[in-house]
Amino acid sequence: MLIKMAANATKGQIEHVVERIRECGFQPHLSEGEERTVIGVVGKSDGRRSEVEALRAAPGVDEIIPIANPFKLASRTMRPEGSIIELGKGVTIGGTQVVVGAGPCAVESAPQIEEVAGRVAAAGAKLLRGGAFKPRSSPYSFQGLGEAGLKMMRAAADNHGLLVVSEVMDPSQIELMVRYVDVLQVGARNMQNFNLLRELGKVRKPVLLKRGIAATFEELLCSAEYVLAGGNYELILCERGIRTFETYTRNTMDISAIPIIHKLSHLPMTADPSHGTGRRDKVAPMARASVAAGADAMLIEVHHQPDKALSDGAQSLYPEQFAKLMDELRMIAPAVGREIA
Amino acid sequence: MLIKMAANATKGQIEHVVERIRECGFQPHLSEGEERTVIGVVGKSDGRRSEVEALRAAPGVDEIIPIANPFKLASRTMRPEGSIIELGKGVTIGGTQVVVGAGPCAVESAPQIEEVAGRVAAAGAKLLRGGAFKPRSSPYSFQGLGEAGLKMMRAAADNHGLLVVSEVMDPSQIELMVRYVDVLQVGARNMQNFNLLRELGKVRKPVLLKRGIAATFEELLCSAEYVLAGGNYELILCERGIRTFETYTRNTMDISAIPIIHKLSHLPMTADPSHGTGRRDKVAPMARASVAAGADAMLIEVHHQPDKALSDGAQSLYPEQFAKLMDELRMIAPAVGREIA
Amino acid sequence: MLIKMAANATKGQIEHVVERIRECGFQPHLSEGEERTVIGVVGKSDGRRSEVEALRAAPGVDEIIPIANPFKLASRTMRPEGSIIELGKGVTIGGTQVVVGAGPCAVESAPQIEEVAGRVAAAGAKLLRGGAFKPRSSPYSFQGLGEAGLKMMRAAADNHGLLVVSEVMDPSQIELMVRYVDVLQVGARNMQNFNLLRELGKVRKPVLLKRGIAATFEELLCSAEYVLAGGNYELILCERGIRTFETYTRNTMDISAIPIIHKLSHLPMTADPSHGTGRRDKVAPMARASVAAGADAMLIEVHHQPDKALSDGAQSLYPEQFAKLMDELRMIAPAVGREIA
Amino acid sequence: MLIKMAANATKGQIEHVVERIRECGFQPHLSEGEERTVIGVVGKSDGRRSEVEALRAAPGVDEIIPIANPFKLASRTMRPEGSIIELGKGVTIGGTQVVVGAGPCAVESAPQIEEVAGRVAAAGAKLLRGGAFKPRSSPYSFQGLGEAGLKMMRAAADNHGLLVVSEVMDPSQIELMVRYVDVLQVGARNMQNFNLLRELGKVRKPVLLKRGIAATFEELLCSAEYVLAGGNYELILCERGIRTFETYTRNTMDISAIPIIHKLSHLPMTADPSHGTGRRDKVAPMARASVAAGADAMLIEVHHQPDKALSDGAQSLYPEQFAKLMDELRMIAPAVGREIA
Repeated sequence: MLIKMAANATKGQIEHVVERIRECGFQPHLSEGEERTVIGVVGKSDGRRSEVEALRAAPGVDEIIPIANPFKLASRTMRPEGSIIELGKGVTIGGTQVVVGAGPCAVESAPQIEEVAGRVAAAGAKLLRGGAFKPRSSPYSFQGLGEAGLKMMRAAADNHGLLVVSEVMDPSQIELMVRYVDVLQVGARNMQNFNLLRELGKVRKPVLLKRGIAATFEELLCSAEYVLAGGNYELILCERGIRTFETYTRNTMDISAIPIIHKLSHLPMTADPSHGTGRRDKVAPMARASVAAGADAMLIEVHHQPDKALSDGAQSLYPEQFAKLMDELRMIAPAVGREIA
Repeated sequence: MLIKMAANATKGQIEHVVERIRECGFQPHLSEGEERTVIGVVGKSDGRRSEVEALRAAPGVDEIIPIANPFKLASRTMRPEGSIIELGKGVTIGGTQVVVGAGPCAVESAPQIEEVAGRVAAAGAKLLRGGAFKPRSSPYSFQGLGEAGLKMMRAAADNHGLLVVSEVMDPSQIELMVRYVDVLQVGARNMQNFNLLRELGKVRKPVLLKRGIAATFEELLCSAEYVLAGGNYELILCERGIRTFETYTRNTMDISAIPIIHKLSHLPMTADPSHGTGRRDKVAPMARASVAAGADAMLIEVHHQPDKALSDGAQSLYPEQFAKLMDELRMIAPAVGREIA
Repeated sequence: MLIKMAANATKGQIEHVVERIRECGFQPHLSEGEERTVIGVVGKSDGRRSEVEALRAAPGVDEIIPIANPFKLASRTMRPEGSIIELGKGVTIGGTQVVVGAGPCAVESAPQIEEVAGRVAAAGAKLLRGGAFKPRSSPYSFQGLGEAGLKMMRAAADNHGLLVVSEVMDPSQIELMVRYVDVLQVGARNMQNFNLLRELGKVRKPVLLKRGIAATFEELLCSAEYVLAGGNYELILCERGIRTFETYTRNTMDISAIPIIHKLSHLPMTADPSHGTGRRDKVAPMARASVAAGADAMLIEVHHQPDKALSDGAQSLYPEQFAKLMDELRMIAPAVGREIA
Repeated sequence: MLIKMAANATKGQIEHVVERIRECGFQPHLSEGEERTVIGVVGKSDGRRSEVEALRAAPGVDEIIPIANPFKLASRTMRPEGSIIELGKGVTIGGTQVVVGAGPCAVESAPQIEEVAGRVAAAGAKLLRGGAFKPRSSPYSFQGLGEAGLKMMRAAADNHGLLVVSEVMDPSQIELMVRYVDVLQVGARNMQNFNLLRELGKVRKPVLLKRGIAATFEELLCSAEYVLAGGNYELILCERGIRTFETYTRNTMDISAIPIIHKLSHLPMTADPSHGTGRRDKVAPMARASVAAGADAMLIEVHHQPDKALSDGAQSLYPEQFAKLMDELRMIAPAVGREIA
């Protein structure tokens, strides 16, 4: 941490800061520039970092600049070679394969999920995605089929050799969900639901954590840290669009998140172009862009009758559009040294 | 809902949309302009609204424009005169009084909360604020004292005739918290934790719901709807800053949220200038601005030793700064027909 | 400037950076922490700062952190007591008076501007605002009356003892405008029109520079620096709303800009609640909030027939609303040690 | 245009709106829903649209919803097959070729631009990019070599069979620039410099217009309209990153702008991954993503000694990185039915 003093900070103000740094168990390290003094805060003093941060508002202090990363276990330096997460059935995320998950926004019925599962498996998907518990902005919207939906999805996946990924919204649902799914997804709205993250740290199943719509990369990696610190290293991250001033798309999908997370962290990085754009005709271009930027995996909404979907129909691909997209992705993957089965 | 067709939409495309609207149980209402056709969707058909929304991506459709508000119980039209929430001990929010809550970010010890409670009560605060469960970005930061903290806060509040407001992070904490607090606060990160909101709809205690840092007014009111729909009408909203491109302040406090929420909803509106700015010297100007803009209540962080606070010290006022601010607020309140006791 | 090396930076990478700093004429200053090395860049070497900044992407470099402000003449340290700008007719901005400018978005006709000038002068305004050259998003919108409009505005202002403020869009308009106006306004869209700013540095008339809708405080002050560096110290800044994710209001007016600019700079700070919100019923609350937060001046759109205005009618106050607002502002000003004539 | 009345709008309020619509020369078209009345505004009445928009703040009006696009000539419906812009020397943008422009941020010297031109031409670039007039946030930064720089760039381009693209900042520079360059670039900061756009509408040379960092797609296309309305149809658009809350990258490059502009407009769309990210190691992934998303052209900063560049060195590629990237782009282009020479 560096404490940047104001240009006109008095001697007394500097001394107060220096003293307070020592009281908190760190060593102050003064550097007097022509314009102002900068004080380095060196050493370790567990848990007292935020006490030093309180000096940000002390007289004569201009700014406090963090130097150390607030995340450790999620950092690339922990595992420079990158993590490869095994999902089962020989599917791994983080290696040379680009893994594609596909399926409807929500499980609506057994025939629906069975139909979609068959179509996406035929096109090359390895995971079946679909919501049984749906976080909806309005209490009057369809909230998902719950356990019944999980059962339908598990059956459809098993029929077609797929793995299942589905969203968990609350710690109380974990026990139920681990019986049906292969990957537990944490949605964007829950990226900072710390009680949920802490409980998922105790689970021994892969977790897919989505970036919140207003979350910085640092905050995403701090949330990842909650899961890792609990002992669950089977963690995958996902970009699904951030909120910006532009309202033409539901969100602005931040493709740069893919190479950035790869640089900052060893964790695999997934792209969700369906939520990232909210518009069917933008899904394929953004999916292609994601693979070209180096995504390890992809989640894509597919519905056999999107005009009749109970939720998010407008961003779901028709099965034949998905199949065409898979062919395009297969052409792009070799440009980044990857392949799609 | 209005469906704006593309300028070059074909007859067949328009017919498909019309037919689908009828299938979902609504009446289509065509208006053919010089440039394009706009189709009104009239009538009621519970739960099938999102099916019509799926047409957004249908061929020939340009855009879907919602007309009805997605929130009902939270809407101003439900209670044009505005809601007044009784907190107990004669304190009401939403009337002519501007109510001020004050206290530390986190309860740290019995002497700390006792000292702060005495100081803020003397200056005119009616509520004691303080966290016992702290949502922290990093798992390595101080997470709060839990029930022990709640006990300390309750005792300090009772000693000085104050009410207690504190944050609940998870449904599992509700039962414990209602025994100690007068107002259950939902933090910005949990504004769309729908399971938590649904549970708080069953409680019979006032809830203070903070706007998420990336939440639109409509989303805030939809989240309010979850609590109201559960039958809990003792609901208060709060602006605490939104995330923008500007990083000089922790957040950009959106003062306009105060008159806007007052127009859209009957619920009282609170301002939190401490989280709204994150900088001590900005708290007083923004608190004055909030009262001038019509805030019904205010939450302000105060600490007797902010340089030594375990969290958020940089945005906490000294007790004497708080007392001075209260005097300024008392001068401003009459300009908006209000008073501060 | 500080160069934060990566945790795993090699010795050779650190040496390359050190050498390059010396080549550019600065002194490197190493600080080896437990986790990583931080290199301070000390000394002066005009114009070569951006060469050192290029090291941001050099191998082993994590980040470059600026320490010195990029603005000098605009900085508070240049004039700690604050600047007071004299506009003529005894009106000064930056002192104990809060100065209010009012008038229509655009000058539409001689009777219109005469009528509005009379009404706002009677209510206590000191400046008449109004556009003769209008920057409009669409080439098909009303673009202003040009010189004819300036003449009308000058006459109306003189009739009622007001000063004139109007927007200049291009260097080629300056010569014309200085003949009619007392304050040259630079609009938000031109905040980084550096050729225009440079020319305004040569003028000897007050300039009012509005913050761009996506401009940081630092960028606003860097733009101010262009005017000051040209020798024109009669400069006033203005907050008029920034662009955020929220679309209910035209912009999100950042009231915190007022105390922040007052801390960072000696220049007076104005608030424009009309453009800041874009909605008539939000103008008064935000104007009151601005005075409560310490604004030195205010620009408010007033039209005698806002429903018939050629532009921005929806955000213009009726003259009687403006008069009522002035009374409220007179009640609030004393709370911040100010007064309104 | 649609006028959405409030749920509790009175009969008199509705009549006032209806009457005002007629006064402005339009026909009102009432649609009375169960919850509220919506009034369609039908017909044409040039220039009086903004008068109707002023009703947004009239009593009983909730919102005004535009239906017609504010841009016409830029709209896809004007030229559904898309525009192909001929730059000279057989290079066209908008056809099956993906055209790449490359070069330094600023022209620094004749040997520098000659060296870079040779390297990028060898790798397959068709345009040489480089700034002679530099828009810099700070007045103390390097401002470009002016005409001398243009001469150097022209000579280097001619030596290597390249075309020249360079930025024009002010109407006064146009006459000079058209003598040296093949494409006139308008930078992001000037996207709404309407005087400049109007003058460029009179030029008969291709213009490349960059999206402002806070500009919506609609605003970009309205700015395009200024150039087209002047009679210059040789217009190319460019995405170079928008400003969001994330500060890790200089901007967030909005890859979705590529398919969106292609849908809304017939104009070709370029990507600038160098400014879009501001970090060298992110340029290649984002350039690949842009081609995969369908970009018609690309602008990439390349410098033979980026560590010593006078500006933007941190985002410039080394020539050998550029050559490698070109090879990757050649592999990706066929997936979208394109090729790179």
